[in-house]
Amino acid sequence: MKRVFTFLALLMLFIFNGNAQSNDSLMIKKISDEIFMNGTAYSNLKYLCKRVGPRLSGSAGAALAVEQTARMLREAGADTVYLQSCMVPHWVRGDKEVGNATLTDGKKINLNIVALGNAVGTPAKGITAEVVEVKNFKELEALGADKVRGKIVFYNYRMDPRYINTFQAYGDAGVYRGAGPSRAAALGAIGVIVRTLSPVLDDNPHTGATRYEEGKPKIPAVAISTNGAVELSNLIAAQKVKSIYFKTNCQMLEDVESFNVIGELRGAELPDEIITVGGHLDSWDLAEGAHDDGTGCVQSIEVIRSLKSLGIRPKRTIRAVMFMNEENGLRGGTQYAEVAKKENKKFIMGLESDAGGFTPRGFGYTASLSQSAIIEKWQPLFVPYGALEFKRGGGGADIGPLRSLGTALIGLNPDSQRYMDLHHAKTDVFEAVSERELNLGAVVMTAMVYLVAQYGL
Amino acid sequence: MKRVFTFLALLMLFIFNGNAQSNDSLMIKKISDEIFMNGTAYSNLKYLCKRVGPRLSGSAGAALAVEQTARMLREAGADTVYLQSCMVPHWVRGDKEVGNATLTDGKKINLNIVALGNAVGTPAKGITAEVVEVKNFKELEALGADKVRGKIVFYNYRMDPRYINTFQAYGDAGVYRGAGPSRAAALGAIGVIVRTLSPVLDDNPHTGATRYEEGKPKIPAVAISTNGAVELSNLIAAQKVKSIYFKTNCQMLEDVESFNVIGELRGAELPDEIITVGGHLDSWDLAEGAHDDGTGCVQSIEVIRSLKSLGIRPKRTIRAVMFMNEENGLRGGTQYAEVAKKENKKFIMGLESDAGGFTPRGFGYTASLSQSAIIEKWQPLFVPYGALEFKRGGGGADIGPLRSLGTALIGLNPDSQRYMDLHHAKTDVFEAVSERELNLGAVVMTAMVYLVAQYGL
Repeated sequence: MKRVFTFLALLMLFIFNGNAQSNDSLMIKKISDEIFMNGTAYSNLKYLCKRVGPRLSGSAGAALAVEQTARMLREAGADTVYLQSCMVPHWVRGDKEVGNATLTDGKKINLNIVALGNAVGTPAKGITAEVVEVKNFKELEALGADKVRGKIVFYNYRMDPRYINTFQAYGDAGVYRGAGPSRAAALGAIGVIVRTLSPVLDDNPHTGATRYEEGKPKIPAVAISTNGAVELSNLIAAQKVKSIYFKTNCQMLEDVESFNVIGELRGAELPDEIITVGGHLDSWDLAEGAHDDGTGCVQSIEVIRSLKSLGIRPKRTIRAVMFMNEENGLRGGTQYAEVAKKENKKFIMGLESDAGGFTPRGFGYTASLSQSAIIEKWQPLFVPYGALEFKRGGGGADIGPLRSLGTALIGLNPDSQRYMDLHHAKTDVFEAVSERELNLGAVVMTAMVYLVAQYGL
Repeated sequence: MKRVFTFLALLMLFIFNGNAQSNDSLMIKKISDEIFMNGTAYSNLKYLCKRVGPRLSGSAGAALAVEQTARMLREAGADTVYLQSCMVPHWVRGDKEVGNATLTDGKKINLNIVALGNAVGTPAKGITAEVVEVKNFKELEALGADKVRGKIVFYNYRMDPRYINTFQAYGDAGVYRGAGPSRAAALGAIGVIVRTLSPVLDDNPHTGATRYEEGKPKIPAVAISTNGAVELSNLIAAQKVKSIYFKTNCQMLEDVESFNVIGELRGAELPDEIITVGGHLDSWDLAEGAHDDGTGCVQSIEVIRSLKSLGIRPKRTIRAVMFMNEENGLRGGTQYAEVAKKENKKFIMGLESDAGGFTPRGFGYTASLSQSAIIEKWQPLFVPYGALEFKRGGGGADIGPLRSLGTALIGLNPDSQRYMDLHHAKTDVFEAVSERELNLGAVVMTAMVYLVAQYGL
C-alpha cells in the first residue's frame, strides 16, 4: 500500500510538474510575442545611443542617461523609480591624442592611438623616446631594466583567434592593457603602447581601463589600432624606427556624485524577496555604448515593461537596475550591494546582461548546488528560444558584489563572435545592434526573471 | 562467464568509443585552429563579393564566378577541379524599375520597388490602374473577380515577428511572393505589388523568385520596401490613392549554358563513396550575394583547404560543389543529382550551407533512422563550437535532389535572426559578414565532413 501511495504521489508530482512546465512554456510564449510585437527596447536603445550618446561616469552624458532611463522605467510601468547615489571617478580624455613614429630616414608615420581609460596624461609637450616591442611579459622581463629604462614599451600581443569564445581571448590578452603600464614602469619605461584588443584588423583603436599598481610610477598609456600595431611592428623589425612620440591629454579629476537608476515591480506575495536584473549605464567616451552596455539597460527595462503590459503581477519583487560606473570603477555595483546589506530584504537572484545585445545562447550562473539544480530544471523552457546553453560559472561585474549576500548570480550569454570587434571602440553604435537579437535577449531574460519571481530559488 | 565476457566486451567498446571520440575531438580542434589561424574563406568571400559581384544565372558575373571559384578550389589543394555543364534560365532585370502612386489631390508619391525574379516585364509604357490592398489570400478571394479585374493587387502581409526562427516567418509570408501574381491574375488583376519579405522597416525592396502557375496569365509583379508598404497602406486607408503606375523592364531570355564548379579530395580507402559539401554560386542581381550564398561557397572551399593543409587524407571522397542557379531554377542541383545517378558511386552524404554566414547553431538532417543515430552520436563533439542544436529534418535546396539516391542530407543551421534583414536586397554585402562567424561555420562543416569521411554513415 505504501509503495502504491508513493507511486501515486510520484505520478501526481510528475503530472503537476508537467503542467507547471507547460503553463510556464505558454507564459514564456506570451512574453515572447509581447516583446516581438510591442517591445520598446530598440527605440529606447536608439534614444540612449543617438540622443544621449557617450556616457562615461561623471560626464554630462552619464547625467542625462540617468534622467532618461528613469523616464523609460516610468513609462515601462515600474511601480517605483528611484535613484541610488554613489560617488564615481571622473576621468576625462581631453583633446584627441596624437602620436607618431620618426623613422631613421627622417619621415614621420602617424600612430592611430587613444589613451587607455584611467591613465595619466603625458606632459604638455608629450613624450618622445625609443620604442621596445615585446610580445608578452616574459619578453619584457627578459629585456630587463637596462633595455627598458627611458623607453616606450610596445606590447604587441595579438588576441588569440583560436579561442572559440572571444571573452576567453579577451581575458588572455587583456592583462597587457590592465597590468602592462605598471609592469613596464617597474623597469623604468616612460610610456606604454598596447595593441588593441580586437580580433579584426582595422584602424579603430579600442580604449578600456588600465590599472596602475600601488607604489609603481604611473606612466602614460595608449592603445594602438590593430592595423597600426602590425605596421609599427613591421617597421621595428626592419629597424626603421628612430623614436616614438605621443601626447595624451587625459586626467583623473575629483570623484563626483552619480546614480544607479532603479525601477521596481513590487511582488504580490513576497515583496521582500528581491530579484535584480540589470546592465550598466555608463559607457566609454569614444562611442555610443550600444552593445556595451546600452543593450543590457534597455533589455532590463523591457523585463519590467513586458510583464507589466501582460498584466503579470510577480510574486516576488523585480528590480531593474541601471548600474553606474562599471567601466572604470564598479562603484555602482559596489554601492548597490552595500545598500542591499542594510535593507532588511532577501536578494535571491541577480541577472546581468553585459556581453552585448547579440543573439542569446544561454546563461552562466554562480549559485548553490540546489539553486543551480532549479535553474537547470528550467533549461528545456529556453530551448525554443535558442538560449539553451546552461553553464555553471558566470554572472556579471555589477551584480558580483551581491554574491557576499548569498545571492544567486546569473549572466546572460549572448553569442560572442562579434563583440570584441567593436568593444570600447567608436564602432559600438546603435546600427551595430539587430532589433531581433536584442529582443530575443530581452525575451529570455524576462523568462528567467519570471520563473525566479514565481518559484523562487 | 558469459556475462563477464559481455561486460568486458561492453567495457572495451566503451573505452574504444571513448578514445575514438577523444581523438576526433583533438582532430576537430586542429581543424578549428587551422581555420582560425590560416583560413582563406574571408578573403575568398571578399573577392567573390567585390571583384565578381552579383552573379545571377546567365550573367557575366556568374561566368566569372565559375572561373574564379575553380581557381580558389585549385589553390585550396583539391586533387581535381572540374566544371559540370547545365542549362540555366536567363532572366534579366533591364533598366531600373519606376513606380508611383497618383493621389486624389493630384500629387505623386514614388514607390520604392523592384521586379520579382522570373517575372515578366510591363509593356513599354508601364501599367496604370487602381490598387486593391489585401492582407492575405482570404481577403483576395473575398473580394472576388468583380473587385479585382483590371486592378493592381497589393499584398501587404507583414512577416510575422513572433516566429523565433526567421525562416519560418519567411515560409509563412513567402507564399505571396511565390503564388501571389498567379492568384491575382486568376481574378483578372493586371499587376501585383508584394510587401518585401523582411522583419525590419527600411527602404530596401527585396527581390526573389515568383512562380507563375501554368495556364494563368503572367502579370508583372514587384516587391515594395517595407517602409513603402506601410506608407502606401496608410494612403489607401485614408482613401487618398487614385491610381498606381509602375514600369518594369525585365524579361526571360533563352536558356544558356552554365556550370556547377566541383573540387575533389579523393578518398584514400573508399574513393567511390562521395561526400558532397556545397553552397550555391549564383546570387540575385541587386547585391553582392554575400550571405546568400557566397558564404556557403567559400566555406565549402575551406573544407577542402583546411583538410589538405593539415595533411588529412580522407578515407572517402569529398567534393566541394558550387551549385549554379539555386535562386531561380535549381538547375545546378538537379543536374548534379542526374549525373550522380549515372556515376557508379555511392553518394552517402550531402551537406549544404545556404542560410547565411552567421554563427552556427547546429545541423538539421534528413536521413534514415540509423544514419540519424550516427549523426546524433557525434553531437557532443560540436558542443565546444556552439553548433549543438541537432534536429531531424532539413538539408538544402541544391542537395535536395540527391535524396532520391538515398543520400543523407544535412543542412548547416546558422543563427537566423539577421538573415532576412538583408536577404535578396542590396544590403547583402561583404561588410555584413563577420570573419569569425564565417570561419566558425567552416569549422563545424569541416568537422562534420571529416567525421562522415572517416566513419561513413
